[in-house]
Amino acid sequence: MGGNSPCASCKLLRRRCTKDCTFAPYFPSDDPQKFAIVHKVFGASNVSKMLQELPVHQRADAVSSLVYEANARVRDPVYGCVGAISYLQNQVSELQMQLAVAQAEVLCIQMQHEPTVMPIQQIMDSDHKSYFLHNELHQFLNFGSSSNVIHDIENIFGHDMVS
Amino acid sequence: MGGNSPCASCKLLRRRCTKDCTFAPYFPSDDPQKFAIVHKVFGASNVSKMLQELPVHQRADAVSSLVYEANARVRDPVYGCVGAISYLQNQVSELQMQLAVAQAEVLCIQMQHEPTVMPIQQIMDSDHKSYFLHNELHQFLNFGSSSNVIHDIENIFGHDMVS
Repeated sequence: MGGNSPCASCKLLRRRCTKDCTFAPYFPSDDPQKFAIVHKVFGASNVSKMLQELPVHQRADAVSSLVYEANARVRDPVYGCVGAISYLQNQVSELQMQLAVAQAEVLCIQMQHEPTVMPIQQIMDSDHKSYFLHNELHQFLNFGSSSNVIHDIENIFGHDMVS
Repeated sequence: MGGNSPCASCKLLRRRCTKDCTFAPYFPSDDPQKFAIVHKVFGASNVSKMLQELPVHQRADAVSSLVYEANARVRDPVYGCVGAISYLQNQVSELQMQLAVAQAEVLCIQMQHEPTVMPIQQIMDSDHKSYFLHNELHQFLNFGSSSNVIHDIENIFGHDMVS
């Protein structure tokens, strides 16, 4: 950036903004709040270290996710981003249950009208692109976990979360 | 805790662990990694400030969520927790679409067999506690947003996320 127009980070930290400033590309001087919030939650030194450990082409995304996380923590100081994950995990479970019920409903009605019903595959091919095949219903009735990278929040907190 | 058995935080920071140590109740000396990871991502000073701003009964949950977030950031230095939110938001959208399709399927089959079919409400009342009413199908076909507290990740990054 150059000494005369420091980036938002160098301005807040009251230091000289050099040409190779790690923050300057992501924290322009006209948006001081963006840096202030990541500084408050993660600390400038940690953010700098995290960015320097990443290749340049991934740093903009890392900054966006850090800003998102920091905002979530300020809005919800107890649960932060984890509140959103818990909410979404519950929503996924609820939808999986509703989907299993609706698919069971389809099977149930079809069985009631078996002799006259149009073959299900025929209905699907003509009307519905993403219809689930019957054998996939079993998968939903088992309510498998969302993803192996996402830990079950309820297990971590040992109780229902308030947020 | 007392000077002779410092908590994991005071041990790492090489300072005396006093009776009123903010960290001691949540970072026992036998689990040094738990503090090391939040220190690496958020910094001891920020964690201490965050805990002190909360009432005591909420601090254990805040520590759990900070540890969860820090672990997510170490596993995925670019997206951290936000990667999980993006994954879950996509899963919710996909399930909402599949549910709308399955519910449309129910209506479609019922219309084919209208003269002889058992009224849907009767089937629902007898078999399915959480079946969606017909007018709620419209809501799903509109694919409403998950929650007003969760920002749309794709809008923040402006592209599909890799994680």
